Amino acid sequence: MRETFDKELVQLHVRFAEMGMLVNEAIFRTVKAFVDHDQELAKMVIQNDQAINQCENQLEKMTLEIIALYQPVTSDLRDVITVLKASSDIERIADHAVSLAHATIKMKGTHRIPAIEIEIAKMGEYASQMVADVLDAYIKRNLKHAYQIAQRDLFLDQELAKIKQLCLTKMQADQKAVVSGSYYTLVATYLERIGDYVTNVCEWVVFLKKGEIVELNPGNED
Amino acid sequence: MRETFDKELVQLHVRFAEMGMLVNEAIFRTVKAFVDHDQELAKMVIQNDQAINQCENQLEKMTLEIIALYQPVTSDLRDVITVLKASSDIERIADHAVSLAHATIKMKGTHRIPAIEIEIAKMGEYASQMVADVLDAYIKRNLKHAYQIAQRDLFLDQELAKIKQLCLTKMQADQKAVVSGSYYTLVATYLERIGDYVTNVCEWVVFLKKGEIVELNPGNED
Repeated sequence: MRETFDKELVQLHVRFAEMGMLVNEAIFRTVKAFVDHDQELAKMVIQNDQAINQCENQLEKMTLEIIALYQPVTSDLRDVITVLKASSDIERIADHAVSLAHATIKMKGTHRIPAIEIEIAKMGEYASQMVADVLDAYIKRNLKHAYQIAQRDLFLDQELAKIKQLCLTKMQADQKAVVSGSYYTLVATYLERIGDYVTNVCEWVVFLKKGEIVELNPGNED
Repeated sequence: MRETFDKELVQLHVRFAEMGMLVNEAIFRTVKAFVDHDQELAKMVIQNDQAINQCENQLEKMTLEIIALYQPVTSDLRDVITVLKASSDIERIADHAVSLAHATIKMKGTHRIPAIEIEIAKMGEYASQMVADVLDAYIKRNLKHAYQIAQRDLFLDQELAKIKQLCLTKMQADQKAVVSGSYYTLVATYLERIGDYVTNVCEWVVFLKKGEIVELNPGNED
C-alpha cells in the first residue's frame, strides 16, 4: 500500500511539474510576444492554454482519487492537498498570460509608446522569472527561497504604480496615446496579479514544509 | 465517529456560509460605494477584508483537520474538498471588491462621466446578484441554478467590452476623461473577473452534486 501510494504521489508531482513547465513557457512566451509585437506567438499562447486547463483538471482528479483510495495523513496529506491548491494558482497565472496575449493581438496597429513598453518588458521579465523561481522552490521545497520570492512581489507593485502614472501622463498629453495607454495599464495589472499568485504558491511551499498556513502578501494591490 | 464527523461538517458549512455572507456584503457595499462616490463605505470594505482572509485561513485549517481526523470518502470527501477549493474563489471575489474600493477612493476629484457610471453600476449590481445567487445555489446544492448562473457570466463579458469602448471614445474626445476613463476600465475588468470566480463556484456545485469536474467557462475573457 505504502509503495503504491508513493508511486502515485510521484506521478502527481511529475504531472504538477509538467503543468508548471507549460505555465512557465506560457508566461515567457506571452511577455516575448508583447515585447516583439509578435501576434503569432501570442496566438500560440492562447491555443496552448487548453492543455494547461486539462492539466489542472487531471491534477484535481488525481488528488481526489489518491485521497479517497489511500486516505493519507499528516505530511502525505499536506503533499496531496498542496498540489490541489497550488495548481489553481498556477492555472490562474496561465489565465493572465492569456489575457496578456489577447492584449498583444488587439494592440496591433495602435500607437506605440517605447518608454512604457520598456517598463512593461522589465515587469514582464521580472514576473516571468518569479514564476520560474517559485516552481523551482516548490519542487525543491526550498523554504528560504519561498520567503525571498514572496518579497520580490513588491517590485511588481511599484512598477504597476509607475506604469499607471506614465500611461495617464501620456494619454493626457496626446490623444493618439489613449488606446495603447489603456492596454498598457491593463497589461501591467495582469503582470502585477501574476506576482500575487506567485506569492500564493510561496505560501503553499511554507505549508508543505511547516504545515502552517501563512500570509505572505498582507497588503492588497492598488 | 459518524456523529462527530457530521457535527464538524455542519460547523464547516456554517463557517463557509458566514464567509459567503461577508463576501456578499463586501461586493454589495463596494458597488454602492462606487455608485454613490462614498469614500467612507469604500474604506469600510477595505478594512473588513481582513476578516474574510481570516475566514479563508480558518476554513483551510478546519478542512485539513477534518480530512486528517476522519479520513472521509466519496461524497463526504467531496463535501470537504469543495469547501477548500470554493473558499479560494470566494476570497478572490472579495479581493476584487477591495480593488474596486481602492479605485473608488482614488477617483475622488476626477472628472466623472455619468454615461459610463450608469453602465458600471448596472454591471456591478449584476455581478453582486450573481455572487448572492451562487452562494445560495451552493448552500442549497441547486445544480440547475448553478448551470443558469454560469450562463449569466456572458452578460458581464459583453458589458466589459461595451464599457472599454465607451471609455476609449470618451478619453480620445476629451483629455479630462483620461484619468477617470482608465479607472472605469479597470473597475469593469474587476467586475468581469468576479463573474469568472462565480462561474468557478458554479463548477464546484456541480462537483458536489455529481462528482464530476466540469468546465462551465470555456472562453477566457478579453
